[in-house]
Amino acid sequence: MNRTRLEAFSDGVIAIIITIMVLELHAPHTSSARVLSLADLQSLRGLWPVFVSYILSYVYVGIYWTNHHHMLHTVRRVTGSILWANLHLLFWLSLVPFVTAWIGQNHFAPTPMAVYGFVLLMAAIAYTILQHTIIADQGPNSVLRAAVKADWKGKVSVACYLVGILCCLVSAWIAGVLYVTVAMLWLIPDRRIEHEIRRHEPSTEAEVK
Amino acid sequence: MNRTRLEAFSDGVIAIIITIMVLELHAPHTSSARVLSLADLQSLRGLWPVFVSYILSYVYVGIYWTNHHHMLHTVRRVTGSILWANLHLLFWLSLVPFVTAWIGQNHFAPTPMAVYGFVLLMAAIAYTILQHTIIADQGPNSVLRAAVKADWKGKVSVACYLVGILCCLVSAWIAGVLYVTVAMLWLIPDRRIEHEIRRHEPSTEAEVK
Amino acid sequence: MNRTRLEAFSDGVIAIIITIMVLELHAPHTSSARVLSLADLQSLRGLWPVFVSYILSYVYVGIYWTNHHHMLHTVRRVTGSILWANLHLLFWLSLVPFVTAWIGQNHFAPTPMAVYGFVLLMAAIAYTILQHTIIADQGPNSVLRAAVKADWKGKVSVACYLVGILCCLVSAWIAGVLYVTVAMLWLIPDRRIEHEIRRHEPSTEAEVK
Amino acid sequence: MNRTRLEAFSDGVIAIIITIMVLELHAPHTSSARVLSLADLQSLRGLWPVFVSYILSYVYVGIYWTNHHHMLHTVRRVTGSILWANLHLLFWLSLVPFVTAWIGQNHFAPTPMAVYGFVLLMAAIAYTILQHTIIADQGPNSVLRAAVKADWKGKVSVACYLVGILCCLVSAWIAGVLYVTVAMLWLIPDRRIEHEIRRHEPSTEAEVK
Repeated sequence: MNRTRLEAFSDGVIAIIITIMVLELHAPHTSSARVLSLADLQSLRGLWPVFVSYILSYVYVGIYWTNHHHMLHTVRRVTGSILWANLHLLFWLSLVPFVTAWIGQNHFAPTPMAVYGFVLLMAAIAYTILQHTIIADQGPNSVLRAAVKADWKGKVSVACYLVGILCCLVSAWIAGVLYVTVAMLWLIPDRRIEHEIRRHEPSTEAEVK
Repeated sequence: MNRTRLEAFSDGVIAIIITIMVLELHAPHTSSARVLSLADLQSLRGLWPVFVSYILSYVYVGIYWTNHHHMLHTVRRVTGSILWANLHLLFWLSLVPFVTAWIGQNHFAPTPMAVYGFVLLMAAIAYTILQHTIIADQGPNSVLRAAVKADWKGKVSVACYLVGILCCLVSAWIAGVLYVTVAMLWLIPDRRIEHEIRRHEPSTEAEVK
Repeated sequence: MNRTRLEAFSDGVIAIIITIMVLELHAPHTSSARVLSLADLQSLRGLWPVFVSYILSYVYVGIYWTNHHHMLHTVRRVTGSILWANLHLLFWLSLVPFVTAWIGQNHFAPTPMAVYGFVLLMAAIAYTILQHTIIADQGPNSVLRAAVKADWKGKVSVACYLVGILCCLVSAWIAGVLYVTVAMLWLIPDRRIEHEIRRHEPSTEAEVK
Repeated sequence: MNRTRLEAFSDGVIAIIITIMVLELHAPHTSSARVLSLADLQSLRGLWPVFVSYILSYVYVGIYWTNHHHMLHTVRRVTGSILWANLHLLFWLSLVPFVTAWIGQNHFAPTPMAVYGFVLLMAAIAYTILQHTIIADQGPNSVLRAAVKADWKGKVSVACYLVGILCCLVSAWIAGVLYVTVAMLWLIPDRRIEHEIRRHEPSTEAEVK
């Protein structure tokens, strides 16, 4: 089975997810001022929650894409289970534009923020399932297992999402801070996998087609 | 002719089909509650038919993608007939978002459910035509023919769609149960093709680019 | 320069063009009938011009995709001129969803039909320009020139579009018949290029990656 | 790490950006005239600002795509920093449809024109950051550095955007002229990189897969 096509399809879906979120930014109406006007600039101000939620989700989807990129790089054989574990992950990611629109349109209200956290949580779980599926297929000498090790980042993220959802019972802002913190944590791409791959394939040059 | 490009184009179309369906999930309005509120969570309840129809169609399109992935893997030469049989399949799949929106917005009313079944039926027929086109091109030693054999799954699906459409004369729920059953039947990816390919290409390692 | 990426980008744009046209099919409202009702089925009837225009444009874009596929197959070197001639073609194709919506929403009224023909005409011209750019780059032994020869199909199409646009001064239906005729003409993929390629690369097996 | 996937993802995002802009062109209503009517053709006239802004942005995004194409061609190793510098560039490009809709719907009003220039400015800066990230990774013998040299085009563009934004305090038209000028400047693809690559890889034939 061909890894290239699995990557291409995932790239397509993720590219569309990331781009349709921008459709939520509706162009505001401007006055008939003939020069740059502060009033018109301020018409953008109403868009800030939509814009901020777009940035947050863009970073999240970007993180998933880069880590997915690294993880699939270790895959040597694409099985049916990997295909479906991947489709399961893409399903939860495909809900990100919906919850992003929901928090943006409602100024980060607590209920949408909790549901946003829930979708992130499910995506994180789906990512872990995909990871385990690949490791199981690779057997005892799994490159991915060696790279991921205890996966504390994955565990901390899940904990943060859970705490974040619960925090919405008190204040949506704590949840927001937690979600941003998890994003920060992952912004550093998963060098563990990069390192393991290099250990196993000393000549990275050969990697480049 | 280049198989890669046929796959890339199909992946693009299928990725867009799968993702634009999520645009039907319109973010509901929330109250001004300052903490997580049950009333706001219940505003999601009105979305359930849209959400359920999204899941069903996501699974269906996912099934088509994985089986298409396996089937095209056996193609060694892309002819004009294969290109058009493939475009014909993509045409019917491109109508899935439309019928999905229709059943979702009308709470699985019988008429949309019958038309939904009709589109699934036509996609199944288009898939069979593509399969036959590839087998015909591969000649007597066709890997795909050996893999597909009697294709009972394809025949059962077509029968289920036909019965499902007729059932809408009585109740849309029976049709729904039938459509879900067919999806279940296919969720197990087409291992027949995987097996045949492995028989013909013993070293799967060599498959990976 | 890398041909693969030119193909991938074109595939992406064409896949999106083909798929966003289906967004024009808005799901109609259904009655509360509990079983399949003829009245509800008839609510689809109002969609027929949108649906027919979708089929016509789908076939047109499909034709462009298959012929583009064959033409780019002869390209050995991607120059800046080829990149921009290709972007120019994609520009006119990107207007197809707009004119398709226009003719569909207005029941093939003569003015939209004329503009539809104009966009098809410009796309045909852009395709010819791309063809000439590739031939010019390939020099005297151009595989593409040998394949295309006098390009009577291209010339007949341009003539049909021009006559079709003029016909809208009398009746939009004649234009419609002409546009369908051109589509029919091209539905047979450009075997000339397939033949020339096979003459130059006797072992097609080697083509498959 | 695999360059192909970085290209495929960027192609996907750019293809979607370029195509969703066309959704702003809403099909106007036509009269019931039975033949081609001047009045109906004039209904297109109201679309001219949307159409002109679409052309401008199409050219801009096309320029980014071709230059990105050339630049990534020099990349031999994809690091985490390159992935994120690329996502940063795609972020600013993803805002192009939004500002394009804004200037189109408001007839190139000065405030939207200033914000349009700001997004172009940020995209240019993001492109420069990506360029520097690649050069830094390539080390002292960087092919890209040799190709880009003093990058006067990049510097002139940034200056034009800045002046353009300021001009909106006086007149949006000067800004428009400046933005068009920058587009003209870049329409000629970055042959510097093409030349450097050929110097380093004398047999371009070998480039083609």
